[in-house]
Amino acid sequence: MEFTINQIAAMLGGEVKGNGNAKINMLAKIQDAKEGQIAFLSNPKYEQFIYTTNASAVIVKKDFIARKDIASTLILVDDPYISFTTLLEEYHKMINFQKSGVEQPCFIGENSTVGKNIYRGAFSYIGNNVSVGDNVKIYPHVYVGDNVVIGDNTILHPSVKLYAGTRLGKNCVIHSGTVIGSDGFGFAPQEDGTYKAIPQLGNVIIEDNVAIGSNTVIDCATMFGDSTVVRQGVKLDNLIQIAHNVEVGKNTVIAAQAGISGSTKIGDNCMLAGQVGIAGHLTIANRTSFGAQSGISKSITKEGERLIGYPAIDIKEYFRSYAVFKQLPDLNFRLRELEKKLQALHGNEAEGHLSVK
Amino acid sequence: MEFTINQIAAMLGGEVKGNGNAKINMLAKIQDAKEGQIAFLSNPKYEQFIYTTNASAVIVKKDFIARKDIASTLILVDDPYISFTTLLEEYHKMINFQKSGVEQPCFIGENSTVGKNIYRGAFSYIGNNVSVGDNVKIYPHVYVGDNVVIGDNTILHPSVKLYAGTRLGKNCVIHSGTVIGSDGFGFAPQEDGTYKAIPQLGNVIIEDNVAIGSNTVIDCATMFGDSTVVRQGVKLDNLIQIAHNVEVGKNTVIAAQAGISGSTKIGDNCMLAGQVGIAGHLTIANRTSFGAQSGISKSITKEGERLIGYPAIDIKEYFRSYAVFKQLPDLNFRLRELEKKLQALHGNEAEGHLSVK
Amino acid sequence: MEFTINQIAAMLGGEVKGNGNAKINMLAKIQDAKEGQIAFLSNPKYEQFIYTTNASAVIVKKDFIARKDIASTLILVDDPYISFTTLLEEYHKMINFQKSGVEQPCFIGENSTVGKNIYRGAFSYIGNNVSVGDNVKIYPHVYVGDNVVIGDNTILHPSVKLYAGTRLGKNCVIHSGTVIGSDGFGFAPQEDGTYKAIPQLGNVIIEDNVAIGSNTVIDCATMFGDSTVVRQGVKLDNLIQIAHNVEVGKNTVIAAQAGISGSTKIGDNCMLAGQVGIAGHLTIANRTSFGAQSGISKSITKEGERLIGYPAIDIKEYFRSYAVFKQLPDLNFRLRELEKKLQALHGNEAEGHLSVK
Repeated sequence: MEFTINQIAAMLGGEVKGNGNAKINMLAKIQDAKEGQIAFLSNPKYEQFIYTTNASAVIVKKDFIARKDIASTLILVDDPYISFTTLLEEYHKMINFQKSGVEQPCFIGENSTVGKNIYRGAFSYIGNNVSVGDNVKIYPHVYVGDNVVIGDNTILHPSVKLYAGTRLGKNCVIHSGTVIGSDGFGFAPQEDGTYKAIPQLGNVIIEDNVAIGSNTVIDCATMFGDSTVVRQGVKLDNLIQIAHNVEVGKNTVIAAQAGISGSTKIGDNCMLAGQVGIAGHLTIANRTSFGAQSGISKSITKEGERLIGYPAIDIKEYFRSYAVFKQLPDLNFRLRELEKKLQALHGNEAEGHLSVK
Repeated sequence: MEFTINQIAAMLGGEVKGNGNAKINMLAKIQDAKEGQIAFLSNPKYEQFIYTTNASAVIVKKDFIARKDIASTLILVDDPYISFTTLLEEYHKMINFQKSGVEQPCFIGENSTVGKNIYRGAFSYIGNNVSVGDNVKIYPHVYVGDNVVIGDNTILHPSVKLYAGTRLGKNCVIHSGTVIGSDGFGFAPQEDGTYKAIPQLGNVIIEDNVAIGSNTVIDCATMFGDSTVVRQGVKLDNLIQIAHNVEVGKNTVIAAQAGISGSTKIGDNCMLAGQVGIAGHLTIANRTSFGAQSGISKSITKEGERLIGYPAIDIKEYFRSYAVFKQLPDLNFRLRELEKKLQALHGNEAEGHLSVK
Repeated sequence: MEFTINQIAAMLGGEVKGNGNAKINMLAKIQDAKEGQIAFLSNPKYEQFIYTTNASAVIVKKDFIARKDIASTLILVDDPYISFTTLLEEYHKMINFQKSGVEQPCFIGENSTVGKNIYRGAFSYIGNNVSVGDNVKIYPHVYVGDNVVIGDNTILHPSVKLYAGTRLGKNCVIHSGTVIGSDGFGFAPQEDGTYKAIPQLGNVIIEDNVAIGSNTVIDCATMFGDSTVVRQGVKLDNLIQIAHNVEVGKNTVIAAQAGISGSTKIGDNCMLAGQVGIAGHLTIANRTSFGAQSGISKSITKEGERLIGYPAIDIKEYFRSYAVFKQLPDLNFRLRELEKKLQALHGNEAEGHLSVK
């Protein structure tokens, strides 16, 4: 990144106050910024820093009135926070897509085609009959099996592994060490106590705009023509397990170390917190939310519920029950006291009865 | 795969009805099949599709009687489902073992030997003094450390890592990103609050017919000559943790994200559901079954038990207790009511006593 | 390893009894040792083996008195166990640091510098502007992104991935498949139900003497200039999730499959057992200890507490409550009995009142 302040202001539709020709090569917080960097001031709490910052430029609100001298050039905009976020995103995009060209050695098989402006890092492997779209970034040590399709603008970080037949949409980001398309866990018990592997012949389909973290695993579907499917806009964190034939609905977000068992269908816009486990062959309604470490053993049919526990129940009920759980020894004690008293009372009562007879 | 229908029928011991010379290159479901593909009809619910399918061949039961014209060639067998499964397995084996030869660049150290008909993918690494059996498939980016032994017909998917000294049996399948033989987690606390690493000098032994999923980790044993052992026929899913000096008994099946702590010995034919955690230095009897997310903190001595919860208890007991757990606030309320009533009664009782005196 | 017994005795400050010129190439247990190996005798229970062992040398206590003939050369020391441990550590260090030189092909970008006596395995990748210290061991398939700094004596096992900007201290050991610096899981919900990625622009700092297991993931911090920090002496096991902006305090030990959510600050000398989950934005006091599978949803302010459960409570309280949890159906039954009795009593009481009136 290397732009003049004037160029950045033009991009943001802002007005420059000061020297617009200075060069910017980095973004920073106003309290940390150095020469050549740009910062922003949005929260009045941080105003003090604008008078001392070394930032070459600061993005401020149009109506900002300085109470002291400011050394930095100002860019006046409607909303400094949004403007800065825009810059962050542009910068991030630039960083992500800056790699291009082909580093050697790298491997590409027969009948495979790659689009324009792609990056193929050293030691990356592309098998046979693979189709790679435009602007795709394939980092070092990535493995792309035979017959894989990768959409435009998708980024595969170092050591991502795509098994043969995987289909990956556009604008996806897959982080390091993630495995897509390995065999589902299917074994048929035999009479002698051993297990026989059930051939896993389906594939995985990842739709557009999906982000996947590091060291996550998504298994292929069992049967020919079937797919494990991750719908568009889904965001998966690190170390997640997605078993064979699972479907994850649109825009669903799953936190780290959660696991979904085979053939379960998760609805759209669901939220799974960390370390959640979902049993197999279930259907989870749209907008369901599961608290951390929940275990789900039944289908959820009503949309928008919030559940927790094992097996998961309504989150409020769980915490009400858990509050009593913590007092259980006391409850037990009180119950025993009552039993004793009642026992004693029975005695008295019996006597009482006698005495009144 | 490219066989004539006659060849396939001969393999299945079936009888051909129609053109046996047509070529088959793929298996498919009867409702999806295209020309050049073979399907099967077992469940009468799907009979309708046999009259419209584009499959070149359909496997049917010997006594199947068509009620309309069928375009496909038929293969008559005793049990179409079993015959199709046989084909699936053959096909799967063919797919798995189809790769062969050596892709460049790949690395092999000194004094290492490889068997017949093996595949060494590009960027695969074999260290010194390694022994690789026949028909072994070593995919790209696989790392095989010094002094490793790999049995016949074993498949190492992309980026499997075998540390020095690992011994791998025959007919094993290890999926992507799995690490075998890394250091056990052993640290001795020092007086100054720091920890000193305890050298981990043992290895890992994986016996025959073991399947391991993706991104699983199996640590080496601590002492020289000791081994972390995975017995024959064991099936491990993805993202599993097997700590140092663990032994997993024959034909035990462990689902994704389960973890077994150091020096624990799991019996034969056990089943661990997803996200189960087992503490260290325990012994688990044969045929024990643990429900999802269970935590096991004590040895299990009786064979064949089914447990769940944390710490794990009998699965039926757990669910009975959990049913009451959900009513705990109500229980607590009822208990308080009783206490009040008894209090009130005591009052009356006291009065009563007075009145009868 | 190939030393004479005399050399080893000198290293341990011990006295040789027998032939000190024999060569030693391996350590072993006294009951398993072969010629060319060295063993030790500390526990009297094992004394029988010293008379039959094939070990070329045995380390014994200074005042050891043999009751029969011993074939092995003896090394007399103050504490045989400590001496043997010293040898183990030296051996382990030698094993770990024995690899050196550069295997081809491997990749190094522009403006990157490497120290003395380093190992760069085949297919290892070093990006641009990287600084690698002395004695660093970079195994095959390791990925080191741009602008990374690696301190002296650090070992990166096969397929470790360091994203751009990561800073790694001295004397660290990182095991296979571990990912450091991947994007934090940050997504801003949009009005149409989709999520927009929040650019992740910080880095990860790992201080000195840190050990990290296999397939663990540590995400980078969100903002420029911010870091996810793992302090000196920390020991992380396999398959752990450390989210963006987390700080793990000095000498804290975390067992396998635990997960820490974003921006949480763990104190010094804490212990997290396996599969623990900690929510985001919490502060955990020094020396806190969490039992296996605990879920932590609140900050812990008092140092030295031991907690367990979900949400985690004091470990003793948890087990007391859990003991009653197992009896909940019985508790419920007893409560119902009491209610019935009290109901009956109320009847009698009412009658009794009548009768005394």
